[in-house]
Amino acid sequence: MLPSWNDGAAKAAIVEFVEKTVSGGVPVEERIAAFDADGTLWCEKPAPVEADFLLRRLAEQATADPTLRERQPWKAAYEKDGGWLGQVISEHYDGDDAKAKTLLGGVAQAYAGISVEDFQARSDAFLRGTQHPTLGRGYLATAYVPMLELLRYLEANGFTNHMVSGSGADFMRPITREVFGIPPERVTGSAMALSYSSDDHGGTITRAAQLGFLDDGPQKPIQLWSRVGRRPLVAGGNSNGDVPMLEFAQHPDKPSLRLLVLHDDAQREFAYTAGAEEALKKAGTSGWTVVSMKNDFRSVFGAA
Amino acid sequence: MLPSWNDGAAKAAIVEFVEKTVSGGVPVEERIAAFDADGTLWCEKPAPVEADFLLRRLAEQATADPTLRERQPWKAAYEKDGGWLGQVISEHYDGDDAKAKTLLGGVAQAYAGISVEDFQARSDAFLRGTQHPTLGRGYLATAYVPMLELLRYLEANGFTNHMVSGSGADFMRPITREVFGIPPERVTGSAMALSYSSDDHGGTITRAAQLGFLDDGPQKPIQLWSRVGRRPLVAGGNSNGDVPMLEFAQHPDKPSLRLLVLHDDAQREFAYTAGAEEALKKAGTSGWTVVSMKNDFRSVFGAA
Repeated sequence: MLPSWNDGAAKAAIVEFVEKTVSGGVPVEERIAAFDADGTLWCEKPAPVEADFLLRRLAEQATADPTLRERQPWKAAYEKDGGWLGQVISEHYDGDDAKAKTLLGGVAQAYAGISVEDFQARSDAFLRGTQHPTLGRGYLATAYVPMLELLRYLEANGFTNHMVSGSGADFMRPITREVFGIPPERVTGSAMALSYSSDDHGGTITRAAQLGFLDDGPQKPIQLWSRVGRRPLVAGGNSNGDVPMLEFAQHPDKPSLRLLVLHDDAQREFAYTAGAEEALKKAGTSGWTVVSMKNDFRSVFGAA
Repeated sequence: MLPSWNDGAAKAAIVEFVEKTVSGGVPVEERIAAFDADGTLWCEKPAPVEADFLLRRLAEQATADPTLRERQPWKAAYEKDGGWLGQVISEHYDGDDAKAKTLLGGVAQAYAGISVEDFQARSDAFLRGTQHPTLGRGYLATAYVPMLELLRYLEANGFTNHMVSGSGADFMRPITREVFGIPPERVTGSAMALSYSSDDHGGTITRAAQLGFLDDGPQKPIQLWSRVGRRPLVAGGNSNGDVPMLEFAQHPDKPSLRLLVLHDDAQREFAYTAGAEEALKKAGTSGWTVVSMKNDFRSVFGAA
């Protein structure tokens, strides 16, 4: 059981929780587990997978239309200017979202006007065909093996796993079943505003140039509730944006498990706590289980 | 198979579609069926079940606060003025939504400020404890037996059934598994705007006094896509608001089934086509299967 986990507090907490849930007879339909994706189930550095996908598209647009090359975020995407993109993140952590707004505004236009089915085909092709920039493996092989084992272990004990991602649901869905064993209908994520138009081949749903909602922070428990109509027993995340979802996995009369993945393994993955400060503090005071990638993961990735 | 259906074109179309899907080897994960609830899976006359629930609450509020008795929709709810409520519907069908706006504005305040879990408990109690006003049976026993058989028949052939209701998802969910065999996580419906607040008992999701979205018309395929990430093979409805969802169940290379329930049985249920005119016209020109309650249903309801 959980062969890629080292023996330690995290593994013990997981096993204890599962055994308590099963022996306590918590009904199977209440055994809901919710996991963030980027940085929790797979690698999110140097940038989330969807960011790479979207920036390549912006660069493509700037290649086709030179006037875009003078405007952010197309300029940074076209010039591969990691500096500007890094500033977006660091200023965001400092509470200044001016550049983040510019970035999101551009990103909203990356695939505006295309049908959800065409978008699905493009993300599918990207996800299957693209290498991680530094890890020497395809993006699909950047899933954390111990977390995949955890998903299977929960399933074997009657749990239903859901993904609640800040990345787009339509972006993730083409590969979630294959990579994480989570079927598309159990994937919640950010979404563009969508519109429907009638036609003679079954109607078309089109992505607008406008965000529907960002599935982060308080939206995570709200979206999970909206889909499932239940409070989860298990929630796993790795950043401040996961705090509300982890809080939400608390019950007056049932065991619960809150996991926070700590990126402290510069050698095998990446070491960072930026964007996770509040979550780590909260973990300390709330009895959440911190999973150290360095100490708790016997291995991190599977075959490349 | 389908014992409560009379032999006829509708039953034949259903069986032919299912056999073609199975023998054609359409993958199980693509066998998605989506059904409207009110008027399609259970009775919606003289008013949708949720309307009864909400109007009682408005009357309760007017009982507690006399100033509300002079304002619509509390006035009509308090005086049980079916006339005003009837006008809302008939003016809506004529394209005038002034009164509908007043009604929705009031309805949005019916359960504003309570947690989703408290709301769930109240709708659960109402649904299990309330009689249909004229049919001599509880609301839960107003489900159409032939449609329940259809859901089970589809399931037995590898389909996954979803409910896509104009009524609130949080209203329907407490009873959908028991009555329709559709678990809460496969129920899509209208939703109030929700907010999340952190607290020391797992956080609280609260209903705002504002509609999130009305799951009707073009929202039905959009919401279904947002949840499932797939185009359905089967769609069933009974009114104009279901037209986009029925359109959306069309594939260039796979069989599909579009069912439109026709309320033509004044003796056993209700006879009406108001609000279904466009859907009936579209059914005629698009090869959709019209299900006559009078002719195709051997029985309508089960044990009271």
